[in-house]
Amino acid sequence: MFVLNFNKKCAILCYINPCEVPMINIAILGFGVVGGGITEVINMNKDKLRQYVGDDIYVKKILDLRDFPDSPYGDRVVHDISEIVNDDEITLVCETMGGVNPAFDFSIALMNRGKSMVTANKELVAKKGIELMNCARENGVHYFFEPSVGGGIPEIRGMRTSLAGDTITEIDGILNGTTNYILTRMKREGVDFTSTLKDAQRLGYAEANPAADVDGLDAQRKIMILTAVATGYLCEEKDVYCETMTKLTPADIDAAKRWGGAVKLLGSSRIREDGCALYVAPFFVPEASPLCFVEDVYNAIRIVSPVTGDVMFYGRGAGRMPTAGAVVADVAAILSGLADKEKKCQWQAAPEGYVKPFGENKFSYYVRVKTDSVSDTLEAAGLAFGAVKALDGSPAGFCELITDEIAENTAQAVFAGEALGVVESVIRILK
Amino acid sequence: MFVLNFNKKCAILCYINPCEVPMINIAILGFGVVGGGITEVINMNKDKLRQYVGDDIYVKKILDLRDFPDSPYGDRVVHDISEIVNDDEITLVCETMGGVNPAFDFSIALMNRGKSMVTANKELVAKKGIELMNCARENGVHYFFEPSVGGGIPEIRGMRTSLAGDTITEIDGILNGTTNYILTRMKREGVDFTSTLKDAQRLGYAEANPAADVDGLDAQRKIMILTAVATGYLCEEKDVYCETMTKLTPADIDAAKRWGGAVKLLGSSRIREDGCALYVAPFFVPEASPLCFVEDVYNAIRIVSPVTGDVMFYGRGAGRMPTAGAVVADVAAILSGLADKEKKCQWQAAPEGYVKPFGENKFSYYVRVKTDSVSDTLEAAGLAFGAVKALDGSPAGFCELITDEIAENTAQAVFAGEALGVVESVIRILK
Repeated sequence: MFVLNFNKKCAILCYINPCEVPMINIAILGFGVVGGGITEVINMNKDKLRQYVGDDIYVKKILDLRDFPDSPYGDRVVHDISEIVNDDEITLVCETMGGVNPAFDFSIALMNRGKSMVTANKELVAKKGIELMNCARENGVHYFFEPSVGGGIPEIRGMRTSLAGDTITEIDGILNGTTNYILTRMKREGVDFTSTLKDAQRLGYAEANPAADVDGLDAQRKIMILTAVATGYLCEEKDVYCETMTKLTPADIDAAKRWGGAVKLLGSSRIREDGCALYVAPFFVPEASPLCFVEDVYNAIRIVSPVTGDVMFYGRGAGRMPTAGAVVADVAAILSGLADKEKKCQWQAAPEGYVKPFGENKFSYYVRVKTDSVSDTLEAAGLAFGAVKALDGSPAGFCELITDEIAENTAQAVFAGEALGVVESVIRILK
Repeated sequence: MFVLNFNKKCAILCYINPCEVPMINIAILGFGVVGGGITEVINMNKDKLRQYVGDDIYVKKILDLRDFPDSPYGDRVVHDISEIVNDDEITLVCETMGGVNPAFDFSIALMNRGKSMVTANKELVAKKGIELMNCARENGVHYFFEPSVGGGIPEIRGMRTSLAGDTITEIDGILNGTTNYILTRMKREGVDFTSTLKDAQRLGYAEANPAADVDGLDAQRKIMILTAVATGYLCEEKDVYCETMTKLTPADIDAAKRWGGAVKLLGSSRIREDGCALYVAPFFVPEASPLCFVEDVYNAIRIVSPVTGDVMFYGRGAGRMPTAGAVVADVAAILSGLADKEKKCQWQAAPEGYVKPFGENKFSYYVRVKTDSVSDTLEAAGLAFGAVKALDGSPAGFCELITDEIAENTAQAVFAGEALGVVESVIRILK
């Protein structure tokens, strides 16, 4: 039985389909945790997806270096990308390989053959987003990436639909579950960074090489992507200040509690007409902010715009099912035609100077100084910063203070100098 | 100059438009706080909206009983709905009148003339949603209502897009800003309900007649709407248990703190294949839930589904600009064609017995008993409930306990009987 052009999304009705419902053939690149989850979600939500998309979604091919002889999908695994590129029945491809290469070349080849793509690969989107969006536009296909930031949290769709008519001015995100888990444990139990990281590794929450998480690189990519969705400008990594959270100590976490908040690793952008401030660093977050109470592996993205005020999207920022669910939601948006109507992502390189030099940003700071005389330190700090407040409950031998807002460059010059004495810790305060 | 059928959304190019950009004519019913905000948002975000929708949006007529001689929109105010119904240039109408009548008749008349609608009127959607959705479908127009629940929070679009392929099993919402403001003040300051309500009224956060807010009717309508979006079934008000929060005392708020959480007025639904539990009541919310920290006039909606896990949408649940912004976002979704692709709302009446009788639901309870002997009360409670835990720090002369899960009917029979003695307060615990 042949049904040619049964509908525009499905060139040929598949033979192995027993009940002759039209099907849409897709492929998955990378059959790991998330890639495997995609097949599971498609099975689990088969009926709902058929209702939404109008057809059944069929995973026809899966690219992986490995074989999966025991998987029910084992016979669909291919090792050569050309088997997917050249398969004209496949109209959409989910990329969950990670890394820039060869994912970038594969994606370009696939879109050049008229296939839409959904990716969970934040590194690729952050580094090659402009080329990928351009390639999609030239080929009249979609390149969607909701799963690349915040796992199952639909903040990118929110920005491309409900907030599309408004002007986003601020984004603050807890964008990395591993570091938030570590910070939550440090806060609850008073334990130090290294032992908490080891626990997180043992539990599978942190990678054997945790640098991308704890040094903020993962959050850096994600805030670059969110800022590009808001502004249309994709910045370069080198322009985004990124500070590790590995130096945080129990004394810092305790100080944040006494101050009335918690330490969080934030990716932030402050967007103005003439440019934006963009950075990743640990911050004191006050209890008045809903971000203060986002704990464990949860992520949250707070977005401010003049009309809507502040909204926050909260949920599981990683994990097999939430991330796979976000991939399938983007697949369904493309196949149902929803994607055609969402605000287009046409990114361009941020112009020279668009990202404000980090040193020009102004912050208030928490500063802990080792000192024999608290009053001497406070006096010196007053001379350097103008108004400062001492934090109550400091451990003996230390002076802790909160400065007024001051330019980063000026502040760092003071911290590096001898005016205050031995500065043991400096943490910026979220405003 | 005449341009007929310049595009499908704009039958005739308007004369007073100086730069001859095509325009879409809309109308507003009710020029109050939100209605006035709509004109402001459209002006403020003119460029972004043009980019998104493809045309300028022009508010051609405004229905109100009053005249507005000093408003720049004064000459567009009409007093007779037929001036809008019969104006074929108007393709979309925003309804911000409130109340069922005459808003319902107006909406039906407008949709029967081929006009799409956006409403902020939760009472109308909760009571007449089925007829309104049917009328929209029959006329091939849209009836959109994101602003009716959670002001500027885009949770309904999230449910109709990103979560559309998943199965929603739980919804818990802080859906009323007035009561959340009162509860936040009571928690922070230890003050009583009545004086806090007076303050809220003085500040304009609460109505002169606050019954709809404090008795939970507002939240009841909103949880009915959210449940209908999730299930397709609109329940009747009489089937949704609704408990006032006016009886809450500082002792309750303090007990929740000692227990490790806060009291929140929640609208909740627990959705199963064969029916759902649906209710509005004050709850003890544990600190482990992100709802615990939603404070002041903010609203939040937490949604659970098997794939995505739990997501929470947080933001300003009311107010001129956020609500007007949500109206304009729905207007833009309709005019851009996005609405055509979102999951359709085809509601029907919930079948008999779909909403589980409230008495059959199981909860854990916080119970405060006036007693001369804590040990006697604990023993009696143990006999009645099985395992109970005493709450530490109870005021003298009282025994406070937390029960295991037990059916509401059974629990209430115990509270009403003489076994425990004088039961001063009973509050359910969020699970």
